[in-house]
Amino acid sequence: MISKAAIRYVKSLQDKKQRQKYSQFIVEGEKSITELLKSRFNLVSIYALQEWLDAVSIDFKGVKVEEVSYEELKQISSHQSPQKVLAVVDMPEPLPLSADAGYLLALDEIQDPGNLGTIIRIADWYGIKHIVCSKGCTDLYNPKCINSTMGSFLRVNLVYADIAETATNLQLPLMVAVLDGKNVHEGGLPEKGILVIGNEGHGINSAIINASDVRLTIPRFGDAESLNAAVSTAILLDNLKR
Amino acid sequence: MISKAAIRYVKSLQDKKQRQKYSQFIVEGEKSITELLKSRFNLVSIYALQEWLDAVSIDFKGVKVEEVSYEELKQISSHQSPQKVLAVVDMPEPLPLSADAGYLLALDEIQDPGNLGTIIRIADWYGIKHIVCSKGCTDLYNPKCINSTMGSFLRVNLVYADIAETATNLQLPLMVAVLDGKNVHEGGLPEKGILVIGNEGHGINSAIINASDVRLTIPRFGDAESLNAAVSTAILLDNLKR
Repeated sequence: MISKAAIRYVKSLQDKKQRQKYSQFIVEGEKSITELLKSRFNLVSIYALQEWLDAVSIDFKGVKVEEVSYEELKQISSHQSPQKVLAVVDMPEPLPLSADAGYLLALDEIQDPGNLGTIIRIADWYGIKHIVCSKGCTDLYNPKCINSTMGSFLRVNLVYADIAETATNLQLPLMVAVLDGKNVHEGGLPEKGILVIGNEGHGINSAIINASDVRLTIPRFGDAESLNAAVSTAILLDNLKR
Repeated sequence: MISKAAIRYVKSLQDKKQRQKYSQFIVEGEKSITELLKSRFNLVSIYALQEWLDAVSIDFKGVKVEEVSYEELKQISSHQSPQKVLAVVDMPEPLPLSADAGYLLALDEIQDPGNLGTIIRIADWYGIKHIVCSKGCTDLYNPKCINSTMGSFLRVNLVYADIAETATNLQLPLMVAVLDGKNVHEGGLPEKGILVIGNEGHGINSAIINASDVRLTIPRFGDAESLNAAVSTAILLDNLKR
């Protein structure tokens, strides 16, 4: 049984302003919540179906767990068909950016929460530990974004900051993908740096392209004019890390 | 001015059954429609805003063009904010599959129209001319799919057929991506074949995995459990074509 006030509060976290006001966000799904319990993130409360609570053997480590009906879960979920469990989580402090892992990713005004989540998942696959998002990027804590990371938001540190300033501070080369750059299939790519991925519609801001140190190109074998942001990220990281 | 019957008809093409009944589908956006006029596809009618018709100089080659208001366009569009032009197009006969281009792509029960469209766009980037879709795949002519191809549906031939049978008929090796296959970064990959991409949730059907000739693996450097279908397609094609 969940109180009406709690339903209102959890629902309200689908709104960015409310998330920022309370520094909390929601996470859905058994896998992410199991992983959360082992992470540096602080869980505030868990809302779960009785059938799920009966079936799992999880150490909730003192986190408040409330049993809810499917109808109640539907009211607080961001999904039309909710998963069996939902958690309210404190936003963690971002970690300091570091160049230890070789490559960082920088996202220039990525607008779609699903794209941001997919890019975080790709970064996690390729062992990228830090992402710099320009201030114009969509919010990491949007439920659509968190859902599409498939749990990778737990392992990739994301900081909202100026991209060019970050490159200067960390003394790392800025790498951009353009149509007339160095063919990434030819090798000899930088062993560290900040790879910039541009906005879905208009690509990378010209100021960042002008400030860049390395210009890369994904070779094209057919006739499509472009690839989407997440797909480009994956191909570039696959070529950098090989 | 568009008749009420025409509005009803064009709207109805958002429904698969209606599309199949009339063998017609809708295409939106200036770029795709300009390219359509130069393609093997047969345009039936074009509905466009006056401001767009005034601004463009396109040879419509005798296709019926109707001026519509923004409100009318909104009624027939699949977008909430429609683009300035929409066309009704005859479904073309699929071309015979061929192994000329080296690689074919096979999609095993891809469910999401946006994913299918994105994969067609990636195939077009890598010069893949033919895609075999299992019968359980979503419909190519779903407006969401056509939109997300960004025009690439014009250049990639897509056929619904049995994947294993197609491999046998074309005498091509079936390639699947699994967790314990050959590392694609190590080279020595087949110079032709059918690359199978699995369903978003449960991957490739075990019957196809068992019938496969080549097992590939995208090396992982971090901790994400998997990559999505479109992203995997892109990385695999980038490695095959390099």
